[in-house]
Amino acid sequence: MNTGKIPVGILGATGSVGQKFVELLSDHPWFKISDLAASERNSGKKYKEAVNWIQSTPLSDKIGSIKLKKCEPELDSKILFSALDASVAGEIETEFAKRGYFVISNAKNHRFDPEVPLIIPEVNPDHITLIKNQRTKGAIITNPNCSTIGLTLALKPIQDKFGINKVNVVTMQAISGAGYPGLPSMDIIENVVPYISGEETKMETEPLKILGTYYENGIVNSDMKISAQCNRVPVIDGHTECVQIALDKKTGLDEIIRCWKEFKALPQELNLPSAPMNPILYLSEANYPQPKIHRNVDGGMAVSIGRLRECSIFDFKFVVLSHNTIRGAAGGTILIAELMKAQGYFDGVIC
Amino acid sequence: MNTGKIPVGILGATGSVGQKFVELLSDHPWFKISDLAASERNSGKKYKEAVNWIQSTPLSDKIGSIKLKKCEPELDSKILFSALDASVAGEIETEFAKRGYFVISNAKNHRFDPEVPLIIPEVNPDHITLIKNQRTKGAIITNPNCSTIGLTLALKPIQDKFGINKVNVVTMQAISGAGYPGLPSMDIIENVVPYISGEETKMETEPLKILGTYYENGIVNSDMKISAQCNRVPVIDGHTECVQIALDKKTGLDEIIRCWKEFKALPQELNLPSAPMNPILYLSEANYPQPKIHRNVDGGMAVSIGRLRECSIFDFKFVVLSHNTIRGAAGGTILIAELMKAQGYFDGVIC
Amino acid sequence: MNTGKIPVGILGATGSVGQKFVELLSDHPWFKISDLAASERNSGKKYKEAVNWIQSTPLSDKIGSIKLKKCEPELDSKILFSALDASVAGEIETEFAKRGYFVISNAKNHRFDPEVPLIIPEVNPDHITLIKNQRTKGAIITNPNCSTIGLTLALKPIQDKFGINKVNVVTMQAISGAGYPGLPSMDIIENVVPYISGEETKMETEPLKILGTYYENGIVNSDMKISAQCNRVPVIDGHTECVQIALDKKTGLDEIIRCWKEFKALPQELNLPSAPMNPILYLSEANYPQPKIHRNVDGGMAVSIGRLRECSIFDFKFVVLSHNTIRGAAGGTILIAELMKAQGYFDGVIC
Amino acid sequence: MNTGKIPVGILGATGSVGQKFVELLSDHPWFKISDLAASERNSGKKYKEAVNWIQSTPLSDKIGSIKLKKCEPELDSKILFSALDASVAGEIETEFAKRGYFVISNAKNHRFDPEVPLIIPEVNPDHITLIKNQRTKGAIITNPNCSTIGLTLALKPIQDKFGINKVNVVTMQAISGAGYPGLPSMDIIENVVPYISGEETKMETEPLKILGTYYENGIVNSDMKISAQCNRVPVIDGHTECVQIALDKKTGLDEIIRCWKEFKALPQELNLPSAPMNPILYLSEANYPQPKIHRNVDGGMAVSIGRLRECSIFDFKFVVLSHNTIRGAAGGTILIAELMKAQGYFDGVIC
Repeated sequence: MNTGKIPVGILGATGSVGQKFVELLSDHPWFKISDLAASERNSGKKYKEAVNWIQSTPLSDKIGSIKLKKCEPELDSKILFSALDASVAGEIETEFAKRGYFVISNAKNHRFDPEVPLIIPEVNPDHITLIKNQRTKGAIITNPNCSTIGLTLALKPIQDKFGINKVNVVTMQAISGAGYPGLPSMDIIENVVPYISGEETKMETEPLKILGTYYENGIVNSDMKISAQCNRVPVIDGHTECVQIALDKKTGLDEIIRCWKEFKALPQELNLPSAPMNPILYLSEANYPQPKIHRNVDGGMAVSIGRLRECSIFDFKFVVLSHNTIRGAAGGTILIAELMKAQGYFDGVIC
Repeated sequence: MNTGKIPVGILGATGSVGQKFVELLSDHPWFKISDLAASERNSGKKYKEAVNWIQSTPLSDKIGSIKLKKCEPELDSKILFSALDASVAGEIETEFAKRGYFVISNAKNHRFDPEVPLIIPEVNPDHITLIKNQRTKGAIITNPNCSTIGLTLALKPIQDKFGINKVNVVTMQAISGAGYPGLPSMDIIENVVPYISGEETKMETEPLKILGTYYENGIVNSDMKISAQCNRVPVIDGHTECVQIALDKKTGLDEIIRCWKEFKALPQELNLPSAPMNPILYLSEANYPQPKIHRNVDGGMAVSIGRLRECSIFDFKFVVLSHNTIRGAAGGTILIAELMKAQGYFDGVIC
Repeated sequence: MNTGKIPVGILGATGSVGQKFVELLSDHPWFKISDLAASERNSGKKYKEAVNWIQSTPLSDKIGSIKLKKCEPELDSKILFSALDASVAGEIETEFAKRGYFVISNAKNHRFDPEVPLIIPEVNPDHITLIKNQRTKGAIITNPNCSTIGLTLALKPIQDKFGINKVNVVTMQAISGAGYPGLPSMDIIENVVPYISGEETKMETEPLKILGTYYENGIVNSDMKISAQCNRVPVIDGHTECVQIALDKKTGLDEIIRCWKEFKALPQELNLPSAPMNPILYLSEANYPQPKIHRNVDGGMAVSIGRLRECSIFDFKFVVLSHNTIRGAAGGTILIAELMKAQGYFDGVIC
Repeated sequence: MNTGKIPVGILGATGSVGQKFVELLSDHPWFKISDLAASERNSGKKYKEAVNWIQSTPLSDKIGSIKLKKCEPELDSKILFSALDASVAGEIETEFAKRGYFVISNAKNHRFDPEVPLIIPEVNPDHITLIKNQRTKGAIITNPNCSTIGLTLALKPIQDKFGINKVNVVTMQAISGAGYPGLPSMDIIENVVPYISGEETKMETEPLKILGTYYENGIVNSDMKISAQCNRVPVIDGHTECVQIALDKKTGLDEIIRCWKEFKALPQELNLPSAPMNPILYLSEANYPQPKIHRNVDGGMAVSIGRLRECSIFDFKFVVLSHNTIRGAAGGTILIAELMKAQGYFDGVIC
């Protein structure tokens, strides 16, 4: 049946983020899942036999019956979503790009390659043009870390209007961010773990590239200073972040709230299927946002902010919440693909 | 039976902190529970009939059979621990002090009265002499807020040696801090609530008085700047705090860790019964401290610290953990009483 | 605007079940929310100002702006959903019925009145005719207890085909079943409470009426024996029940599973808007059903069953899971209203 | 230093139960930890370097510095506690017994060997004599499954006095019973898993041997019928069990409660160090026992029972709670060793 949809594949389809790609792409208006690829030992099995499905919507028989392929560049779909583990993502993604595939990746490996864009579609859509420097038939495009995305979306409109020179952030991150099996229940039930390996460095560096400026075929990083402290808490989905900012220009609480409320960007203008109507929801209740209540706003693609107030050390402090496996992983990555499709990048590869 | 112990009373004995006083005083070597006082409607009932006992050790029959009295200054014990609710503590405590009682209080009402000491025994034992300004036969002495105590203990040895000018703190606080019934389970299971009424102000002001200097019959507050952000997480006991500090003098990680490890103070010198052998435990594991593992160190009276590292915005950042209902409430208040007893304040009132 | 929808009202609209009615009726194809009624002290306030909204989808401005009325029989809507507390539901519902309102109630008060039907639409739709005995202009129709509904739906197809003489059930019930604020978090986090007031009696008696036979203008109760034990566990939504049954006729595992899989009833035939396509989902995985994974199957209106196996004391044992606030409360009650509408009961009252 | 204590070893010392043995034996009046043995890859490492210590009391330096040995029969201690995984326990334990070691095991492998006793010291201490049939220099003695022990202790005094012919049990088991890492947090937070591999069979068979009669050098199993359903709930420690029993002789609620309250057995008479003063605590509060409140009664060695009431299908129903890693595993196994020591079994092996 020719649905007119673009066939896509998922690398690392059995893992936690891979499953989220499957879930979010199951009814996608533009893309249809054609290839599911996983580790060699699962190759040849039906997806439903290899996966330990932990999503809250049931796996359809149609997708469950797809036979898993190897992560080798002989897939039919030219557009691939990568949910590969960082231990293998680097080389596999490079290989696919060389062979003409567009790999939109949630893995960390290529995020800081100078010719690889690190994209939040509402923040730096112009960075996608970096891929012309990749000198491959295909390309690699990366999605930032889950805890980076909520933060950077919150910073973007303020950065544009008032300039930010310092950002301090302390996170309370959900367990789904650790993948599956992830944290043993004995370690996190009724507990806080004040450490997530590598996470603080990601939060202190990724926003600098994302908020950087495209200039002479490269990105000039933002020079704001970021200090991050990352914690794991017993929440299933939704990263909560306490943020403090120091600004270049003086302004007031109302102006900042207005910035957030009015913020719309290219994905909204293009009316991309996964784009939230408003990327940022500002909540005025004293005790909001909360992961259990707000993580699913606009299908998990909007970021919720609350508690903006003045700070005696920085200028302002506030709380940001975003869904870590939707906006912070699979959903954000799909939005990049939608943006690229809308901008014609995939014109040659549509079946 | 004359045990030689000092009879003490508990005001607000049926509430969550009141119960913790009962639990911790049940086997105390110096004090014996003689009076349990609560709201008028419970007066005359046996304690076990009025209390909804939620501690993890069973209530003894002996204490359970004590008849509740009213919170009126006709109790036999002259030393009283106050676990009264802030809505009534102010006046009741004043009345008792006027009538010659020593009221050592966990309530917030009198913490900032200029002649009332706000005490952490390891930090500012000298402030107790403030009570001579109270012009009452008895006296009111206060214990700080639960989230203040862990923080201030961590700051004290660094403040003494290197001087601290800025403190930034984000807390992840246990639900037992909200008393009982406290938070509805629907609000906090699998959730974070980024707001605790009044808590940030307490954390931003109490340490200034505690770390202040006794001078000409009063306290000159510390002039460090503190910014606090307080969150509730689904942990039963134990407040975890992410702290950043800017120092007056340069120093290194090892020096700070040594400061903490070597820190001992008057309660340790006096070998007070509730004093931890070391007020501060520094842990070198990357993912420590954790409430489930460390809240009970030294009977819940020691503060655990970990993850000291350099900070790109402040000088250093680290994680502090303390048991909020023991060190942060009942246990800390009892330690004040022990200190006062050891210093002879109660000499005239021992039966 | 005439939407052609039937105006309905909600009694007790601010409580936990009341909110669920609001959420589920917000986009209903047949009904539109016209009246929200609550306690006298909230009367006159806008709904959003009186309610502590705890649902996971945001409250719309349109409904949030509705002014609360008193629970007095002067509402415009003739079809009312009652989420009233049992302490007041009895008299208020009677009063409304007398005055010509159809009250479809989630409260327990009238469930055993001989002329009041106790309905699960897939199980005993014929019992609705009981209301002709009520001798009021309106009528009261009741929805069973949340833990009864999952159980009775599971029993129905087996009862019809093989006869059941004994039912043993042990529940693990979600905290949302206790309303709001319900259980204090200190009581249920990392705990089990092996007692729910009144619940075991409801489970032991309600199925007998529901599975009873309409005969000579009344219901002859089923004579099966039921023994229930009810526990509260730290799950937000979804009651899990371990069930054992002894049958009149011998049969095998496959026959019972087939019974469940093929089970369809009047709501499915009538294609009612809230009716699940299949009331029962049988799962063959060894560790299913689970509340986190299956409570939302078919919008929370289907019951999930698994682990059917032989029992050495009874004949069979299995596990049933159902969403306690959707199928077990608001959703189930709405389905009754849909059934009545489809059968013409509301023909005279449609605006 | 000759402490006069018997040197003991722990097989499988790094796992979850192994750690509990270490914790409980650290201050034991009769035994001292001399050998810690684990898998070959950890052999030679210091214990603290190989173990991921998850107990709530800190690991002492003295024990942390013990060098791990292999699980080969060349250990110095002749008394060994086995916390080995079932995948290897069978052969290793046999080998040790052949070579003259007393292996008191928490593993399931040998529980049903006809010449191996399956012991709860308060229930069937006489079964220990079975070991004379083992025809080895040493012997294997086994401890039952964690969920069996609480149940069987509750049944024993009733069985003795009134006879029990049917037992129906539904469990709500803690996650620590699954070892470490055990259940992924994504699988159990805010969830119930109605399945534990192999557990129901253990509960349906082990009590029959334990409550069996020693006769002509063997055990004649009890012929009571047991049906078990096992669930995992988000509780850290403490198994809660809903139990129903049918008796041979008629009796009343008070008689059964008296049986439990008066129950004392050989460990109490011998005043064994780990024996609870009363093996069974009966609680009359409607909502007790609860794991968070009662799991640690008498050091976690007493079983708490509550809610005894009549049952319409069986004769009685009630709730049992026991600490699964103390009474249900390491503590119960140590109590067996204490019993054997008190009875002279170790006389020849004391250093």
